[in-house]
Amino acid sequence: MIQPFNDEYFMKKALFEAEIAFEKGEVPIGAVIVINQQIIARAHNLTETLRDVTAHAEMQCFTAAADYLGGKYLKKCTLFVTLEPCQMCAGASYWSQIDRIVFGATDPTRGFQHFKTTLHPKTRVEGGILEDQCSTLLKRFFIEKRNLN
Amino acid sequence: MIQPFNDEYFMKKALFEAEIAFEKGEVPIGAVIVINQQIIARAHNLTETLRDVTAHAEMQCFTAAADYLGGKYLKKCTLFVTLEPCQMCAGASYWSQIDRIVFGATDPTRGFQHFKTTLHPKTRVEGGILEDQCSTLLKRFFIEKRNLN
Repeated sequence: MIQPFNDEYFMKKALFEAEIAFEKGEVPIGAVIVINQQIIARAHNLTETLRDVTAHAEMQCFTAAADYLGGKYLKKCTLFVTLEPCQMCAGASYWSQIDRIVFGATDPTRGFQHFKTTLHPKTRVEGGILEDQCSTLLKRFFIEKRNLN
Repeated sequence: MIQPFNDEYFMKKALFEAEIAFEKGEVPIGAVIVINQQIIARAHNLTETLRDVTAHAEMQCFTAAADYLGGKYLKKCTLFVTLEPCQMCAGASYWSQIDRIVFGATDPTRGFQHFKTTLHPKTRVEGGILEDQCSTLLKRFFIEKRNLN
């Protein structure tokens, strides 16, 4: 069966958001939230632009998705994010009771898996979707940044 | 030496915020952020009003304090909050590199200590300031809520 709206499809949308962040000089991380195959929130990291450590792509998506749904719980939603969420974002997902988290690249030093953040018992997780593309964009950002300094 | 602006003084200001939350039907948690004995951010839990799990008092304070300071780091700041921060808020504090977290009541089931959330190595923590007043307000809220249902 053809599945046009699979995990890779939505991760590409998150990557598109990450590319927008890149163009703005932000660490290139993007996210979308999906319910019933429909994107209801999309965001990219804005911590530099907003000078706000809480402005991660995931946090903005949680807020936007809840606003769209008219309720704070995201029980039937999936978060697609290009980098493994940090403690803060995983902690926010705990409160949202989100159904599923799909991430691209792993973050071995700041990711929630490294820090052993507790997810909501109902939340399923999958990593490694378009991992190469997600991590290549991040590496390119840090190489360019280093060359500028 | 008389210290009019000690931890209890600022925790009372956080408690005042928690009382505002109580009046709004929100779980009564309040917070302030202080630098050089001056309050630069104050907020109370707004998760119900905004239908947003990220709208904890601490998160709003981090955003407001960074906005006031014109930079995302809160290195010389102290967060006063009436309840021990959760994983999300402690995770946000990690990114902010805040100097100190002072909380009132302990949260044995959802607090960052229970979940073993990693704080920034520079962040010092103290709990139990005005603990009785902070926990009494929370207990009163849940008793009243149960009686209404």
